[in-house]
Order: sequence, then structure tokens, then C-alpha cells
Amino acid sequence: MNNTPTCPLPDRLDGAVELAHGGGGRMTQRLIDEVFHPFFTNPYLDRGGDGAIMPAPVEDLSGTRVAMSTDTFVVRPLFFPGGNIGDLAVNGTVNDLLCCGAVPRWLSASFVIEEGMPISQLRDIVRTMAEAAREAEVEIVTGDTKVVERGRCDGVYINTSGIGFVRPDLYLDPANLRPGDAVILTGPIARHGMAVMSVREGLQFSSSITSDTASLGDIVSNLLDVAPGLRVLRDPTRGGLSSTLNELAASSGVSIEIDQEAIPIDPDVLSACELLGLDPLYVANEGLMIAVVPADEAEAALAAVRRSAHGERGAIIGRVLPADAEGSRVWLRMPLGNRRGVEMLSGEQLPRIC
Amino acid sequence: MNNTPTCPLPDRLDGAVELAHGGGGRMTQRLIDEVFHPFFTNPYLDRGGDGAIMPAPVEDLSGTRVAMSTDTFVVRPLFFPGGNIGDLAVNGTVNDLLCCGAVPRWLSASFVIEEGMPISQLRDIVRTMAEAAREAEVEIVTGDTKVVERGRCDGVYINTSGIGFVRPDLYLDPANLRPGDAVILTGPIARHGMAVMSVREGLQFSSSITSDTASLGDIVSNLLDVAPGLRVLRDPTRGGLSSTLNELAASSGVSIEIDQEAIPIDPDVLSACELLGLDPLYVANEGLMIAVVPADEAEAALAAVRRSAHGERGAIIGRVLPADAEGSRVWLRMPLGNRRGVEMLSGEQLPRIC
Repeated sequence: MNNTPTCPLPDRLDGAVELAHGGGGRMTQRLIDEVFHPFFTNPYLDRGGDGAIMPAPVEDLSGTRVAMSTDTFVVRPLFFPGGNIGDLAVNGTVNDLLCCGAVPRWLSASFVIEEGMPISQLRDIVRTMAEAAREAEVEIVTGDTKVVERGRCDGVYINTSGIGFVRPDLYLDPANLRPGDAVILTGPIARHGMAVMSVREGLQFSSSITSDTASLGDIVSNLLDVAPGLRVLRDPTRGGLSSTLNELAASSGVSIEIDQEAIPIDPDVLSACELLGLDPLYVANEGLMIAVVPADEAEAALAAVRRSAHGERGAIIGRVLPADAEGSRVWLRMPLGNRRGVEMLSGEQLPRIC
Repeated sequence: MNNTPTCPLPDRLDGAVELAHGGGGRMTQRLIDEVFHPFFTNPYLDRGGDGAIMPAPVEDLSGTRVAMSTDTFVVRPLFFPGGNIGDLAVNGTVNDLLCCGAVPRWLSASFVIEEGMPISQLRDIVRTMAEAAREAEVEIVTGDTKVVERGRCDGVYINTSGIGFVRPDLYLDPANLRPGDAVILTGPIARHGMAVMSVREGLQFSSSITSDTASLGDIVSNLLDVAPGLRVLRDPTRGGLSSTLNELAASSGVSIEIDQEAIPIDPDVLSACELLGLDPLYVANEGLMIAVVPADEAEAALAAVRRSAHGERGAIIGRVLPADAEGSRVWLRMPLGNRRGVEMLSGEQLPRIC
């Protein structure tokens, strides 16, 4: 295309990411063309430019609302049993949109890459993102890449932001909970946090624990079909089940009681938590949702969850109560019938879990 | 709210960010409440939750399109003459949406914070973002905060993603350029890059150079009023004017010729570039736009730019030519009438400029 001598480039990009790949010039273009483009391709993204332009949805928009969500993923290590930072980043933002009651449509993907990151690793991550996006039926329509010096990142950090549309009659709200409502959990807890811990340096316990990272569109769509009174959906990620339940209770000015024996958990996950002295109620989840429904919709809702992908082990784990005299509380009912208060996580249990 | 003993917290959050501020529990909530909430507040954000839900725009949506853009900002240092990473992050994504032909509406803001970052610095950055958002007439509707260990970030990295709406009859496209079109630049080049360089460690040249970071909604709105044939808008950030012109020429299969004497540049910026041996055509800009218009709309378009905020020093800097025999080229016409080819930046001129 031009007759000025330039440095020859090898035929296929491999080796490691260099600072110059972040310069916004020819090398950035090459990184995009060879690592991102093979996996991310659709008419919006392929147009290039600094943004994407999509048609408004074809359905009638009167009353339809726009949902937007964002998350930057900094999980360490980048690869863990059951997933990597790439599918985590796609599934996380998709699930946040689902929790808004939205049908997820478009994602952006923005990468901060550490100088020296192996191109092959980056390619694996990007491929996984493309697969996760396909699975979740969303399109990655725009992106950005930056490169920072060694020791100013940790491999790669990935931001995904997303847009979805909420149908006119659907109002999920953490302030919606009413005494008597049933609390449904869509699967076993603490898998993601313990899968990541199992491969952290210095923690050599071997196990078959895998992250639960997954997008939960099927669960939500089936739930909405049978539970018109659905109060709220929330995914208990950082801070775990306890923190999310505390947030919900506080938002609605109610208390919540959950039954320890009703909460699904895998035996090896429970053993690993005990080994490390961690309370699984605070361990992060990535493919799990809390759904609160009116009592009379609880059984139908549970059946809908259980016939959905990633919802086979769903359970009704508790109920909404009037607030206690001292305010909103979350109570854990123990097997012998006594109960203990469960607080919001105060600080940090597992840094960089997502 | 609960009667369990917890660690006492000081009355106002100060000191430094701790890893535990990233845990998703009570300390994360406190960071959000005390640092982010005072500056970022609107009904969408205040609802809490993992995403924001906004009404679809009230105007008739038939044919309206949705624009989405994303950028992660990693500029070093965080504060530089004329701005900081906060207004840079807001203005950058707003301008990317404007370049799509969109009216920017909503932004997300996602922070990766290094353990040990002074809370006061973070607060200054957040305040600046709020001011920049107000100035650009956009709302920050959702966000995320993560904290990573010392040496795994560099103060803070900020992702902003944005949504805007494009009116039905507007199709800006880098493939739209036709021979004869005029190339307008909205202001002087190389200010942002040289302002950042002026405060980089080891580069002690003192000067009055300030970054041009600004949102350019006024320019775009005035341009659209008078130049119905507007071909494309692009902001020449990383890679500078040369790289962006090369991209446009290649996308349209044309060549572009620009006149060295017509390109606005401040004398102190030019001196600083000469001192450091940098070609200002490759230096990053942050409040600058290239507009290509049909020749017969050029004068009206230039007048519209010049009466806009941040456009007072706009100029017609060149013209679109048919492609050269060897393909698309960008030519710089020199004061003596000869010309030289100007390439896309190959690697990295100024790492972490945005």
C-alpha cells in the first residue's frame, strides 16, 4: 500500500505483547487483526472506528427501557478450573443485565494488557470470550486495547460493558421484597471462589472443583414465563450469598431467613472451605442467581429453574420475614432449629476473585 | 442496623485505598458511598444494583440507531497540565460517540484501583469526571470498582463505556471520502501528548502547554446544522493526526493531501516536539476532531466550527485526492511546494498517553 521501507513483520503474530502494540498505530492494528478479529466479527465491529452503531430493536419500543452494565475483571490467575478471565468477563456482564430484567444484546470489550503477555494466552482468552458471547446470544460490537509496562497490570484486565432492553411491564427491584416471599437459589454455592483458590499459588489442595461461570439467560427466560410476580434477580458474586441477601433485605426493609440444609453446596467445595477456614456463604459465585418470588409462585418458579440450563440443582432456600426490631437482618436457620445472624462481608475474603 | 460488634470505622474515609475496599462487602460500599456517590448521583445510578435501567429516548425511535463505545484509560501520570485521567476518560468516550454521529446520553465508569492509592487523589479524579459529564450533558449511570495489589496497576485505570443515539438520516462513515472533499481540523495539534510528556519523570522541560482534553458536542452539533453532506468525524488520539488520516484514506480508497502551513499548532508545542525529536503529526490529541465535508460545504462548516466551544482555531488543512497509483497515501505539502508521504505510526511514540 505504500512504498516507504518498514520493518518486516513475521507472518503470524506470536511471542509476547510489546508496549508498541498499544500505540494506536500499525502494530495495534496488527494485534487487533490477528488476535481479536478472528474471533470477534460482526457487521458492527467490522466497520472499525471508535464505536459501534446498531439499529434500535425492531420490536415496538414504547415503554421499553435500556439497561446498561459494566464490570472490569481482574481475576488471578487468568486461567482456572472451569474457565478463564474471558468467559468470566462475558458471563458476568450478561448476568448483570439479566438481573436488570433485560434481554442482553450488545457488549463492548476493553483490554489492558501487560507488556510481555504471551500472545497465545491472549488468543485463548479472546476465543473463549467469543464462545461465551455466542452461548449468551450477545454480540461484542466495539472494543479497545491498551498495553502497559511490565508490573503495571497482571497479564490482562478486561472490561465488558453491556446493553440490553427491558420489556415495558417488567420492574425488578431490590426494594420489592415482601414478607412471605420465597427465596430461590439457582444452584450450588461457592464454586467459583473455591475453583480460583484451588490454583492460587501456595494453595496446593487438589480437587475437582470447577468454577460455575455461565450465562443464565435460559433460567431467567423460563422464570419470567411462570412467575409474573418475580420481585428481583441478583447474582451473588463478590461478597457471596450472605452479602447479596443483606443488600436485598436492607433495600426492602425486611429480614430474610435461609435454611442451612436447603442451600445447595458440593461436598468437595464444602471440604475445601473447611480446609481453608472460609465460610461458603461469603465465597464468590459467577453462574448463580437469587430469585425472590411471591409464595404462591414459588413451586412453579423452582420447576422453571430446574428445567433450565445451569439450574438443575436450584432450590428454595428461605423466605422473607418482616424486619426485626433492630432492623433488616439475614438469619441462617441451623439443622437443630436454632438460628444465627449472617452479616454482609466487611472487607476482603478472596482478593481478585473476578 | 445490626447488633453484631464490628470494627469501628473513622468518620470520613481518607488515607489510602486498601485491598479490602475491593471485596464487594461493607468496605466497598463505603468507598462507593463516600468517594463516588457525592459526585455521581442520578436516579439510575442511585438505584444501586449491577446495572442501570433508563427509559428509551422519548423521540420517535423509528430508524434511530444505538451507538456504543468503550475505552480504558491508563494515562501516566494521572494528573497533567490541563486535566487528569478522570476528565480524559469522560471526554474520550463522549467524543468517540460524537464521531459515530451520536448524541451521547449515558456512560458507565469502571475503576481498577491500586492498593495504596490516596483516597484524596481518587476523590479529585471522581469530582473531575462528574464535572466533565455535566459539561458534556451525559449521565454516569452505572459503575464498578476493583482493587488490585500494589504493583499490579498504576494508581487507577478507568474504563468508560457510552451509549448514544444516532438520528435516522445521518450516516458518517470512514469509507465516505470522495476526491475534492475538504479536510477540516478543529484546533491545534499535539497539545495532549506534549502536556503529558512535560510532566513525565525525567523530562523536565517547563512550559505552559496544557492538554486539549474536552468534549466536542458543541462543534458537532453546529457542524451538523450547516453541513448535511458531512462525510466523517474522527478524533485523532493515539497515533496522532497522521495515523487517523491514513486510516481514513485507506477506508475510502483515496489519498489525502494536507498543507503543513495550514495545520494549527502552538509555538511552544512545536518547540517541545523539536526538543524531544517528536513529529507533532504523531502526537496524541484529546479534544480535537477531523471533519471531512464536500468542498461546497467547506466554508460554512469551518465557520460553524470556529463559532463553537473548543473550535475557535479550526482550519481547513487539506483535501481528498484520488488514490495514488500505488494505493491510498497521505501527503504533507511543504511550504516550498514539495511534498512528503506521511505514514501511519508503526509502533509506540508515547506509551500510556491516554
